[in-house]
Amino acid sequence: MKILVLNCGSSSIKYKLFDMDSKEVIAQGGIEKIGLKGSFLKLTLPNGEKKIIEKDIPEHTAGVELILKTLVDPQYGAIKSLNEINAVGHRMVHGGERFSKSVLLNKEVLEAFAACNDLAPLHNPANLKGVNAISAILPDIPQVGVFDTAFHQTMPDYAYLYAVPYDLYEKYGVRRYGFHGTSHRYVSQRVCEFLGIKPEGLKLITCHIGNGGSITAIKDGKSIDTTMGLTPLEGLMMGTRSGDIDPGAVTFIMDKEGLNTTGVSNLLNKKSGVLGVSGVSSDMRELEAAVAAGNPKAILAEKMYFYRIKKYIGAYAAALGGVDVILFTGGVGENQASCRAGVCEGLEFMGIKIDPERNKVRGEEAIISTDDSKVKVVVIPTDEELLIASDTMDIVSK
Amino acid sequence: MKILVLNCGSSSIKYKLFDMDSKEVIAQGGIEKIGLKGSFLKLTLPNGEKKIIEKDIPEHTAGVELILKTLVDPQYGAIKSLNEINAVGHRMVHGGERFSKSVLLNKEVLEAFAACNDLAPLHNPANLKGVNAISAILPDIPQVGVFDTAFHQTMPDYAYLYAVPYDLYEKYGVRRYGFHGTSHRYVSQRVCEFLGIKPEGLKLITCHIGNGGSITAIKDGKSIDTTMGLTPLEGLMMGTRSGDIDPGAVTFIMDKEGLNTTGVSNLLNKKSGVLGVSGVSSDMRELEAAVAAGNPKAILAEKMYFYRIKKYIGAYAAALGGVDVILFTGGVGENQASCRAGVCEGLEFMGIKIDPERNKVRGEEAIISTDDSKVKVVVIPTDEELLIASDTMDIVSK
Repeated sequence: MKILVLNCGSSSIKYKLFDMDSKEVIAQGGIEKIGLKGSFLKLTLPNGEKKIIEKDIPEHTAGVELILKTLVDPQYGAIKSLNEINAVGHRMVHGGERFSKSVLLNKEVLEAFAACNDLAPLHNPANLKGVNAISAILPDIPQVGVFDTAFHQTMPDYAYLYAVPYDLYEKYGVRRYGFHGTSHRYVSQRVCEFLGIKPEGLKLITCHIGNGGSITAIKDGKSIDTTMGLTPLEGLMMGTRSGDIDPGAVTFIMDKEGLNTTGVSNLLNKKSGVLGVSGVSSDMRELEAAVAAGNPKAILAEKMYFYRIKKYIGAYAAALGGVDVILFTGGVGENQASCRAGVCEGLEFMGIKIDPERNKVRGEEAIISTDDSKVKVVVIPTDEELLIASDTMDIVSK
Repeated sequence: MKILVLNCGSSSIKYKLFDMDSKEVIAQGGIEKIGLKGSFLKLTLPNGEKKIIEKDIPEHTAGVELILKTLVDPQYGAIKSLNEINAVGHRMVHGGERFSKSVLLNKEVLEAFAACNDLAPLHNPANLKGVNAISAILPDIPQVGVFDTAFHQTMPDYAYLYAVPYDLYEKYGVRRYGFHGTSHRYVSQRVCEFLGIKPEGLKLITCHIGNGGSITAIKDGKSIDTTMGLTPLEGLMMGTRSGDIDPGAVTFIMDKEGLNTTGVSNLLNKKSGVLGVSGVSSDMRELEAAVAAGNPKAILAEKMYFYRIKKYIGAYAAALGGVDVILFTGGVGENQASCRAGVCEGLEFMGIKIDPERNKVRGEEAIISTDDSKVKVVVIPTDEELLIASDTMDIVSK
């Protein structure tokens, strides 16, 4: 069975084509700058070579059309006919309280999803464009929606509600939803296979640390709390996002700088975080280089970044009543040994002991704690697309 | 030596007169509704009886005048002449980064304090009014300022900075300051006397839980992190304050409800917290009654309230690299056994074990953990006014 996975943003589409018999990616690439000058498709050939096709791509349907054409291209295509694709799985961002698992997309489902647009005004409409583009070109192919928020729908009310007037929850759905759910779910399942343990009874903290970052407390395989909230701004310090901040500081900054809600939102989402504090970059690799060069603000930003992850690990251990496994994933979590070491430093009292040699691992499944560490600390590279493809296969095979 | 302690709000003045030889309060009371209809002074007589004096009190100087007159009143006064008062200590709210300890108030100091008005536009000007009223009536008496923020000035930069553009810190002082500093300092010192231990090497978490609430991580007697931030809105869920919330939710609520910064500030400071979620009351005693009566939203609010304290205890244990003593103080922390039990439930993995019998204590210094609990859990009633009086005495005695 072959499954095409699409991740549609407002001006981009990423795709991967999976052969689910081998679980291998047989084609992948992405389109950038849809509707903008200089739009292009970049694909990775089987030999790892990249190829760029420049083309005017005014909107999503044209983009999807170009992707499909590329998939069957005689020269660098992966399949002979579009008929070989059995189903399309979509990464969809905000499923609100309506979606607690992946679903076959139909008219009713899409209406319910569109009703969540308010909660993710940039992402959800873009996701819908991708679905509609496929419907227009391949009207008979089954499509499945896999939601970033779904995994976190198991949180108890006392964890997901904010302490604001209750009617704001009833009227507008103001609550914690959490994101990166597909990643947290994938690694939380994969770690059990890797360690040969069962999710039942397991107290697991998954740290998805990348340009965006979130941490989830998982008990019995279910999310019971997570750092991102109503929006992906809450929680950890990120590449350009502030994460947690005194709500009184939000209004203080608005008053001082004369910003409206859009203005302060841009400031906190796009100009803050590692970039805002260091003034160097939002990229942790560039930050690490600046730290190595002795840049004081880069050193400060890195300390803040690690410290906030450490505090959430403590908070979630308390929420879980203990912790058995701490898991690092995401671009930084999988690759940056100094981050994992910095975060775990001082947590020996919780039974956490990192092995510096084992911690040198990059992008591979590994145990990085010592044999006598009470808590197992592991690296598990995430694979959201594979989980989207698996969910899609499961649902269309029923 | 006799020290008068004043706590001036925008429409209220609380006072206590201490005899520092015995450390006893020899007179106390408060004025309410300054500048409003129905202003009055309420004092507690030595026999515990309350007396109310109704009087038109248009502004703070008239209020201070009435307090001083009451102190020397032939019938219910505590002293014969105002000359018996050696000094006045003021609770002052926001000392910014300028004040890391209590100081003798002079022109230069008061100008530096006034420069912090922006950070506490309601509180600082009211504090200043109290100082000026004393200066007007007793021009020669020494006055000392004791700042709510001072104790937290030892926090490291990576704990006090927010992950926003660094120039917002430089331009406006946007950072975590923390509050309740006088309380956290008092109990952190008192607990060492009570347990017969030294602050050096001690990892202490102080939970000041009242209508307002904050938690502080204290290492070697110094604050290294605290839950309140630039303003007293951040951190725990409080009587009417939201505490932590996705900054993205702040702008979302503003857009949905058509609120400006003042409007959302009022919502988050005055209509949220325990009151906003339960719809019952901001008072934990009334909430407990509603919980006992089975009110589902009261039960939810209580769970949220406990859960957030628990998470911060975990976070600060991680920040401290372990914890030796957890301390409860403040109206709720000193008196509500169910809160202390609810917070510590599930923290056995950290070596915390509450003794249910010992935990029945109300408003008294006590150890409430079991003898075999690795972490000592204690109740220490706070006494901010006594610390203000002590600081004042120390400074004027130099």
